[in-house]
Amino acid sequence: MQTQILERMESEVRTYSRSFPVVFTQARNARLTDEQGREYIDFLAGAGTLNYGHNNPYIKQALVDYLASDGIVHGLDFWTAAKRDYLETLEELILKPRGLDYKVHFPGPTGTNAVEAAIRLARVAKGRHNIVTFTNGFHGVTMGALATTGNRKFREATGGIPTQGASFLPFDGYMGEHIDTLDYFEKLLGDKSGGLDVPAAVIIETVQGEGGINVAGLEWLKRLESICHAHDILLIADDIQAGCGRTGKFFSFEHADVVPDIVTNSKSLSGFGLPFAHVLMRPELDKWKPGQYNGTFRGFNLAFTTAAATMRKYWSDDTFERDVQRKGRVVADRFQAIAAWISEQGIEASERGRGLMRGIDVGSGEVADKITHKAFENGLIIETSGQDGEVVKCLCPLTITDEDLLEGLDILETSVKQALS
Amino acid sequence: MQTQILERMESEVRTYSRSFPVVFTQARNARLTDEQGREYIDFLAGAGTLNYGHNNPYIKQALVDYLASDGIVHGLDFWTAAKRDYLETLEELILKPRGLDYKVHFPGPTGTNAVEAAIRLARVAKGRHNIVTFTNGFHGVTMGALATTGNRKFREATGGIPTQGASFLPFDGYMGEHIDTLDYFEKLLGDKSGGLDVPAAVIIETVQGEGGINVAGLEWLKRLESICHAHDILLIADDIQAGCGRTGKFFSFEHADVVPDIVTNSKSLSGFGLPFAHVLMRPELDKWKPGQYNGTFRGFNLAFTTAAATMRKYWSDDTFERDVQRKGRVVADRFQAIAAWISEQGIEASERGRGLMRGIDVGSGEVADKITHKAFENGLIIETSGQDGEVVKCLCPLTITDEDLLEGLDILETSVKQALS
Amino acid sequence: MQTQILERMESEVRTYSRSFPVVFTQARNARLTDEQGREYIDFLAGAGTLNYGHNNPYIKQALVDYLASDGIVHGLDFWTAAKRDYLETLEELILKPRGLDYKVHFPGPTGTNAVEAAIRLARVAKGRHNIVTFTNGFHGVTMGALATTGNRKFREATGGIPTQGASFLPFDGYMGEHIDTLDYFEKLLGDKSGGLDVPAAVIIETVQGEGGINVAGLEWLKRLESICHAHDILLIADDIQAGCGRTGKFFSFEHADVVPDIVTNSKSLSGFGLPFAHVLMRPELDKWKPGQYNGTFRGFNLAFTTAAATMRKYWSDDTFERDVQRKGRVVADRFQAIAAWISEQGIEASERGRGLMRGIDVGSGEVADKITHKAFENGLIIETSGQDGEVVKCLCPLTITDEDLLEGLDILETSVKQALS
Amino acid sequence: MQTQILERMESEVRTYSRSFPVVFTQARNARLTDEQGREYIDFLAGAGTLNYGHNNPYIKQALVDYLASDGIVHGLDFWTAAKRDYLETLEELILKPRGLDYKVHFPGPTGTNAVEAAIRLARVAKGRHNIVTFTNGFHGVTMGALATTGNRKFREATGGIPTQGASFLPFDGYMGEHIDTLDYFEKLLGDKSGGLDVPAAVIIETVQGEGGINVAGLEWLKRLESICHAHDILLIADDIQAGCGRTGKFFSFEHADVVPDIVTNSKSLSGFGLPFAHVLMRPELDKWKPGQYNGTFRGFNLAFTTAAATMRKYWSDDTFERDVQRKGRVVADRFQAIAAWISEQGIEASERGRGLMRGIDVGSGEVADKITHKAFENGLIIETSGQDGEVVKCLCPLTITDEDLLEGLDILETSVKQALS
Repeated sequence: MQTQILERMESEVRTYSRSFPVVFTQARNARLTDEQGREYIDFLAGAGTLNYGHNNPYIKQALVDYLASDGIVHGLDFWTAAKRDYLETLEELILKPRGLDYKVHFPGPTGTNAVEAAIRLARVAKGRHNIVTFTNGFHGVTMGALATTGNRKFREATGGIPTQGASFLPFDGYMGEHIDTLDYFEKLLGDKSGGLDVPAAVIIETVQGEGGINVAGLEWLKRLESICHAHDILLIADDIQAGCGRTGKFFSFEHADVVPDIVTNSKSLSGFGLPFAHVLMRPELDKWKPGQYNGTFRGFNLAFTTAAATMRKYWSDDTFERDVQRKGRVVADRFQAIAAWISEQGIEASERGRGLMRGIDVGSGEVADKITHKAFENGLIIETSGQDGEVVKCLCPLTITDEDLLEGLDILETSVKQALS
Repeated sequence: MQTQILERMESEVRTYSRSFPVVFTQARNARLTDEQGREYIDFLAGAGTLNYGHNNPYIKQALVDYLASDGIVHGLDFWTAAKRDYLETLEELILKPRGLDYKVHFPGPTGTNAVEAAIRLARVAKGRHNIVTFTNGFHGVTMGALATTGNRKFREATGGIPTQGASFLPFDGYMGEHIDTLDYFEKLLGDKSGGLDVPAAVIIETVQGEGGINVAGLEWLKRLESICHAHDILLIADDIQAGCGRTGKFFSFEHADVVPDIVTNSKSLSGFGLPFAHVLMRPELDKWKPGQYNGTFRGFNLAFTTAAATMRKYWSDDTFERDVQRKGRVVADRFQAIAAWISEQGIEASERGRGLMRGIDVGSGEVADKITHKAFENGLIIETSGQDGEVVKCLCPLTITDEDLLEGLDILETSVKQALS
Repeated sequence: MQTQILERMESEVRTYSRSFPVVFTQARNARLTDEQGREYIDFLAGAGTLNYGHNNPYIKQALVDYLASDGIVHGLDFWTAAKRDYLETLEELILKPRGLDYKVHFPGPTGTNAVEAAIRLARVAKGRHNIVTFTNGFHGVTMGALATTGNRKFREATGGIPTQGASFLPFDGYMGEHIDTLDYFEKLLGDKSGGLDVPAAVIIETVQGEGGINVAGLEWLKRLESICHAHDILLIADDIQAGCGRTGKFFSFEHADVVPDIVTNSKSLSGFGLPFAHVLMRPELDKWKPGQYNGTFRGFNLAFTTAAATMRKYWSDDTFERDVQRKGRVVADRFQAIAAWISEQGIEASERGRGLMRGIDVGSGEVADKITHKAFENGLIIETSGQDGEVVKCLCPLTITDEDLLEGLDILETSVKQALS
Repeated sequence: MQTQILERMESEVRTYSRSFPVVFTQARNARLTDEQGREYIDFLAGAGTLNYGHNNPYIKQALVDYLASDGIVHGLDFWTAAKRDYLETLEELILKPRGLDYKVHFPGPTGTNAVEAAIRLARVAKGRHNIVTFTNGFHGVTMGALATTGNRKFREATGGIPTQGASFLPFDGYMGEHIDTLDYFEKLLGDKSGGLDVPAAVIIETVQGEGGINVAGLEWLKRLESICHAHDILLIADDIQAGCGRTGKFFSFEHADVVPDIVTNSKSLSGFGLPFAHVLMRPELDKWKPGQYNGTFRGFNLAFTTAAATMRKYWSDDTFERDVQRKGRVVADRFQAIAAWISEQGIEASERGRGLMRGIDVGSGEVADKITHKAFENGLIIETSGQDGEVVKCLCPLTITDEDLLEGLDILETSVKQALS
């Protein structure tokens, strides 16, 4: 395995190749193969980008067919047949069945682009600059999005430009189970000298991925929506990691029966790992003037094609949703058992999550790292999240076979026991 | 041609579908086909993203082969065989022959991501926050990059967050032909109360694409490099639009024999219209700590694959370069003639550009629009650029056949005459 | 009473002349006289600027003597005999007896200047940009200070420049009596993705004047100091309103036995209503280089003179302190009785404060305004504070005679009864 | 002369006491006396704060009389008889004779406060955030004002908060005598992608004091006014140093027959060295709502009193103006001769200025420092200005006697010859 050129030429900023220092060559659904021919079960799945697995054959076929037809690959924001098909499919299979009415903005093919566009639109629409975001939230690292992202690692690496335009408030549960953090938000909103500039919008992940699989309660989310309505504040659901079926519904906010004003999707939206993102907005919020937000890759037609294929394959009825929910329960049960075992060893641990977005909080990054390193040795790719990396996080493909899921869970259990014994 | 859903569901932010209100279905090299079967010659080429044409068969084959092999499509920043191949190819075919020594950062697959990463790195490396940028520069619209972009359209649509961290200086020629704008820069650098915070870096397009095909003189660029060296300021070449062969060299700064400290590439870097970008930096500038800048799509393996294929096909020797330069002269000659004809009609016009990045300045967006609308009617897709859209801009595929190039130029000439008679 | 020119020529920004629309001509200690010859008892005292009363004869004599001697009035930051005398007196009578060791910066003669200098110094000294400030805090309105001030009235009138560099946290008691808000602060400090940039300093008023006479508990303050020490964060006491004896000690933080790293004083510092301010800092924090912060009036010698006289007169022993504390109890008792009466009328009211910085919270600005308007009719000048102006606030001169104090309190009680019956 | 406590207790930020390390005790008109009884002629005059000399007896009498009457000293923004008198006098003696119609805002008693208020008002009035300011401009150091101040000394000492909301443009003559810098401004205004956010206002010193006695041409100023009118941009004259008669007119812009939309005055406005400032604004610009900008010392009645007295004494007719102009010519002639002598020594030097705001540019701070140090030895207090301190700057009291003026000039000439021989 030749890695010198990778070590020499790639910037020190690289991360995953430090945890998993092998050269990967092939992948299919939940299995990755490295250059030595070793297979790994993938509980990382591109940090939630590969909900439908690696090289999903159905989606790949749509892609290859499109390429064979000499369809438009790149067309800025031209109208293309692929874009039209995407919009139609999105409307028919995703929005209409959920009673949602949104217009669509393609701001560039990454999550951070979508967040920049979403918060900028909210500011323009409301004539206010402030965005409320939450502790442990992650919404991207370009400067606009970074203002809403809590991680010091990024915030301290701007080279002397403080972020601006966002206020952090405590996420659900942040101050302990007996304190409803929305009381604080509501008090600040009503306080003329509390220091909270009246926000244009609140941006929230219903389940915080990078922040540590922190799950906002359904009633808390519903109350958040009410507060926003009462104060004429827009609600932005950043569903980049939690969306596209990850929590057991297409949109993660469906569980709470909340209707955001603006939604961002990316990661698994293309279904195939292609860069892609869109912003959904209530039609009356579409205050953009032509060309006020642009980007070269804002109409990536291969992604339109695979995304539409994905929706047709998995979102025509609720079969897939129910399957994800079922697997989520499998993981939850097993994680609870593992957490219980860890706690018995004197390390307080607990399971949490929604759908197939699940984690075990083991209290420290050091412990979590031991587990994931051992798991990698044992053939399982799994990462940590949370402010200190204290949560072992499972984001396996939603399409994982039951066999692979169980094998992965077995490896994890074994690894935990090896690591902590 | 059914466009209702496109008009109804896509945000008002859309632009190109206003100028070219047809639904495109297919494309090959320099020709686009719409749903009615009508063909267009493409002098836009994804605003410089399709230097190697639409659906370039050689590159497509590499892509299809990779897909067939179940290669990794998305792997965050995993080491993959495709990434390794890309780095090797970049080093062997591009960097080494040019005597360049750079490390590589994949910051996310868009130009604005690359610019955000580049300027942030410069700030961190130099411990200063300011970035000097130039009048009519365009470097992206996410908040960090936007600070260096001159267009009011974007700058006024931030919803109340002023950009920060950049100072604009006059580009070469901005103050008239008898004023060397670098005199002003140099005076400000030496002035302790001139208001210019000592910059970490200067960011420049050697030929400004969106800004109106403004061409920096080669001596001016060389002097800019000297000034940067003398004042310990980094020089960032934003070669997103002008790079990848557009000006007749792989890097546009090769013409001036300048060696930037940091380079950004995107647009045509993948060779196939796939979202992709990298930042090149002198090795000693690689001050990133692991994970300080990230993004989900920072390792898009399909783009590694097509980019490497592109380099092998077009950049193994200087054949392609020379061909681009030859075509550039063809366009230049024809544009001069057209400009002369326009001037004869009483509308002062002039040609400018470098390589196949060329334009005719007709003095006003109104006149330019008349021409490009007429061209579209006549089967040529060509756009305008410049602060008022006053420059008719040719960014045809570098791989365009001579027949298509001449036909496109004929159509343009005809359209000019129809529009302005 | 001729007021036309005042109404015509003075900006609409004027405030107090709206509540008290008379032209004042004379004043002595706690009594003001208007042009009609009507006298008012003054429970406002220049919002805490006239702790030693209007035209205090002892201080005035020092001022007049200095003027008679042709002493330096204005000398930028020249060394003058008056400045030296001020520093000696400050050290001997104020700092040494309290075991404090500070260097002194004269940043310009207003509170907001002092706050700008204090937070800038803290940033420079710690190499971090963030300042933690508290809900309902008021620290001035120039842009640097404004970032730490909570009032929307000011924050929304910047004309499109968001403040930056400060994070608001809940003041003591803000989330109800059972929640220690410092738990939240401490959690955020330890959280790598909580969104709180590690602060250079915390700035706090121990009793918030403009914010509504919110009194920080002494143990809470002590814990705040501990947290700052544990995390290498500077503690800035903004004692502009609460200092100079207002709470019954020269510095308000003496009650809590806290030693701030930096202290700001202004308002009553000159003793005579002259513009004056200083910043005190622990000597090792004096990271200023010559001239890095300046201002034309940073050495106002008349204020040095009156301030030194004031210290000699009132701060040579603890007689004055004890008298202020005694009067504070008189006001507290009477305010409690008034609050109890108001509560009996069905309007929940309560007394709070420390020393002679006291208020009655009547729950709404509307009720409070009724009371203060009636008080004005009855010959008492008293204002409201708090986010909604819901607190009737007494800041009478500390030198008020017992007769005037009691008469003022009688007028207030009568006015309350007239207003709310 | 005891200076230990001054050296020990005052912050390292101190400056003038480094150049003039003596303790001053008395002063009258243009003469200062130190503790050793040594007299100095004062060509600094509080950096333009003492236009009417130290301890001007007429003004002092008004002050002492007011104190004797127990007039209001401090009254926040109460209506007082002193304020009314000030407004009446300002209107009758200053505004009306010059055909000016302004409302008045008292934003706090320092120049930087006035600038913060002025630019904030401009932003609010125009709904735009940007302020155009000029190279070498100085407008104060609080964060809002600092954005418009060019000095790196201050700009680099903010502790990591970049300034925002201002763009620097070249002052008259900055790019050499053959370039009209307003051409550049006008081009940027008309350029939709030039990077200049359309400004709310331009702020300018007609003669830059701290920047090096840079004199804007009268036609240049008139053209600047025209450009502002044409583009709906407000013109703010920062007359803090150049106003109050310094250039030979009450307002420095009178020479150019320009009528600014907003004017700031401070420094010599009180006439006696008392902290004081006001903002003048065209009545229709008074968009302030009550209390939107405040400050404790925004109604310093002693300054109202002395300022009104000053106007009555010096500005009832044009006698004083003509005398200042006459003295200005005396200084100019002598400075030209001195500059000529210096040039003969091989150090290129030149005289410049307007009225009694004059300097000799000797090319480097090193040379200028030699001269001023020698002058101090010889009994003349004179400072340098300019980006490198290269300009020896005369700001003597306007009321200086001819004897003292000539003696001061003699000392300067002698000192120059001693320093440079």
